[in-house]
Amino acid sequence: MDRPYLSRRAWITTASGVIAAGLLKTQADAIKLVAQVPANAPDPTKTPGRPTSEVGQRAPGEQPRRLARNQELSSSSRTPLQDLHGIITPSDLHFERHHAGIPNILSENHELLIHGMLDRPMVFKMADLMRYPSVSRIHFLECSGNGGGVYSRDRMPTEVTAQDIDGLLSTSEWTGVPLSWVLREVGVRPGASWILAEGGDAAMMSRSVPLEKAMDDALLAYGQNGEAIRPEQGYPVRLLLPGWEGNINVKWLRRIEITDRPTMTKDETSKYTDPLPGGVARQFSFIMDAKSVITFPSYPYVLPESGWWEVKGLAWSGRGRITRVEISTDGGRDWVDAELQPPVLSKATVRFRHLWNWNGRESVVLSRATDETGYVQPTVHQLWEARGERTSYHQNHQRAWKVASTGEVTFGLGDLV
Amino acid sequence: MDRPYLSRRAWITTASGVIAAGLLKTQADAIKLVAQVPANAPDPTKTPGRPTSEVGQRAPGEQPRRLARNQELSSSSRTPLQDLHGIITPSDLHFERHHAGIPNILSENHELLIHGMLDRPMVFKMADLMRYPSVSRIHFLECSGNGGGVYSRDRMPTEVTAQDIDGLLSTSEWTGVPLSWVLREVGVRPGASWILAEGGDAAMMSRSVPLEKAMDDALLAYGQNGEAIRPEQGYPVRLLLPGWEGNINVKWLRRIEITDRPTMTKDETSKYTDPLPGGVARQFSFIMDAKSVITFPSYPYVLPESGWWEVKGLAWSGRGRITRVEISTDGGRDWVDAELQPPVLSKATVRFRHLWNWNGRESVVLSRATDETGYVQPTVHQLWEARGERTSYHQNHQRAWKVASTGEVTFGLGDLV
Repeated sequence: MDRPYLSRRAWITTASGVIAAGLLKTQADAIKLVAQVPANAPDPTKTPGRPTSEVGQRAPGEQPRRLARNQELSSSSRTPLQDLHGIITPSDLHFERHHAGIPNILSENHELLIHGMLDRPMVFKMADLMRYPSVSRIHFLECSGNGGGVYSRDRMPTEVTAQDIDGLLSTSEWTGVPLSWVLREVGVRPGASWILAEGGDAAMMSRSVPLEKAMDDALLAYGQNGEAIRPEQGYPVRLLLPGWEGNINVKWLRRIEITDRPTMTKDETSKYTDPLPGGVARQFSFIMDAKSVITFPSYPYVLPESGWWEVKGLAWSGRGRITRVEISTDGGRDWVDAELQPPVLSKATVRFRHLWNWNGRESVVLSRATDETGYVQPTVHQLWEARGERTSYHQNHQRAWKVASTGEVTFGLGDLV
Repeated sequence: MDRPYLSRRAWITTASGVIAAGLLKTQADAIKLVAQVPANAPDPTKTPGRPTSEVGQRAPGEQPRRLARNQELSSSSRTPLQDLHGIITPSDLHFERHHAGIPNILSENHELLIHGMLDRPMVFKMADLMRYPSVSRIHFLECSGNGGGVYSRDRMPTEVTAQDIDGLLSTSEWTGVPLSWVLREVGVRPGASWILAEGGDAAMMSRSVPLEKAMDDALLAYGQNGEAIRPEQGYPVRLLLPGWEGNINVKWLRRIEITDRPTMTKDETSKYTDPLPGGVARQFSFIMDAKSVITFPSYPYVLPESGWWEVKGLAWSGRGRITRVEISTDGGRDWVDAELQPPVLSKATVRFRHLWNWNGRESVVLSRATDETGYVQPTVHQLWEARGERTSYHQNHQRAWKVASTGEVTFGLGDLV
């Protein structure tokens, strides 16, 4: 079993040279690690370092990686949640989910057509959009298929990371033009109630959005974490619908049609509709309900000793602010409030933290998020009861990690234990 | 004169094909730009795009760059403020200021010694520090020499960007251990009142910090914007003193000594002390006072037409929250409140925005920030009156941009006009 992160949290040494007996295993790991370092690494206080540069680089030993999966046209890459701090996702580690790859679009050539039930159909170049006033907001994006299928009665993976399970989640500071401002300019006609958003990729990914959301907090986003939005996230412009499932935040946005009904595109009939028990389906399941994931302790970390450990992770809700995250270390019987790290923003991830005094015995650690609407992240049984077991969308139930008495952490089963 | 950004905001076209007469100049620019695009760029809706990857890339046409200056041991690079949105600075565009280059430090080898007036001197490996609970906070960092010397009676540059002038400013979400927690563990002795912080670079950059600040909001920061702190910003760990001048946020931190007085290092006697009139000097000028910079309109942008333009920029204060940013478009006679973009965080940049209806005549545009202590960003005359003209540190006075009737923007002179 590969446990690459062991060394990062593994040992305690002090100036006195005293090593507690319980740390011998990890001390050995430390020695092994040091042995991998070139013995002749020069003393950095004796040798001038390298000069500055136009664009910075990560440290050679710090190379977080997305987990990329490419199958024919369908592809995705997952954010390494267990390696990251805070709430901001570096833009080059933001998750991807594409239906026909990443198009090569020149900003100068790109046009956004807005037409349909309006007074003044218009084509916007990027320079036109950037002429508008703008806003910046920190929001999460999550694929509605995130975590889909990892809990099933047939297949229960255990040696999987937070990235494997829930890595289709990222958070950025987005900048763009409120769509409502642009729609007021084109003059939406009475009777209009939906819009169609169409992407400029080879899948021409298309989704119907209620006009109410378009006029609420939707953005035509061209900025991400300070810079131009990345090609993988929709360059030069994407639709951003805060709190709504990832796919409807249409990337490479090239067309908006104002309509009086949903268009019923392939992407909202053959996909992104949730089969329910009884042969019916839940369609237009836009909102990402409250959810949380623990990023430490998680697979493949190992706790080298009992004692105080900080349980930490991310919580978010597509309905607004997270108001509470609770932690259980006994498989869901007892719960205690975690601390929420400010700022706690609407429709953004919040980092939660909880100090846990591990007694060294097998423990199952879970988190449970509550949002400002009072919605509580369900157990997997509650979710199955509500929606059956046939859908892999919107699987926001509680996740669990099992900490063995050896300190090894594996993906757990929550109340299936 | 090179005006590379002209094309980004230059023209308005509509579906009707009507081009207003006043836009002919910019329309020509648009045509010129399109001519640079390969004529055979394939239709992205007809060709599957490239697959996902482990680490993302910027769009070929979006390559923001730091402005790097390397002289012998002293070097710096500046953040391209005029190219960025929102408040977060991408980590590879964070400014740098080094006194002996960027050391090559292996995290596994790095040690932080804490000694002096305390009960238990200790050496911390990075794994020890990461075992502590952590916090994440969004804070600006600014070099105390930022903007130094650009306003002088002898030399008044005009064709300079916000990056040239004030690019030694960046904002990140920092993660680390509160220094106060670590100091409680080592047991600071009665009578201690300062600490010495020493870096692990070849300059062994060293600064004295009042113990009060160390026990307040100081962090041992190992995370930056979600990932490990970059080598250029102090990998594997730097001291973060929110709101205080950049240099005292000692990078590559390797030693903290608890003392009962400032150590009077070379870095706080020969440097980072401000000469005042009368042969005296202001030493330990730690706090970065409230300041603001306009990033648009700024050199080298050109406003192609009169009418509504969004004046935008950044404001920040080392003393807490920004409470107000005012804009003047007539050289400082009349002022109007700009909008502050939430979240408005303590000791963090805030993005301000103001809609300006430009009448097409020569205008001088300024911003003026106020923080929660009531401190108001001074004019350059007020600053000279208080501190004389011999120092280039802490030059936080109001900046101005002159918009000519041609729409060309140059760095202006504020109330020196």
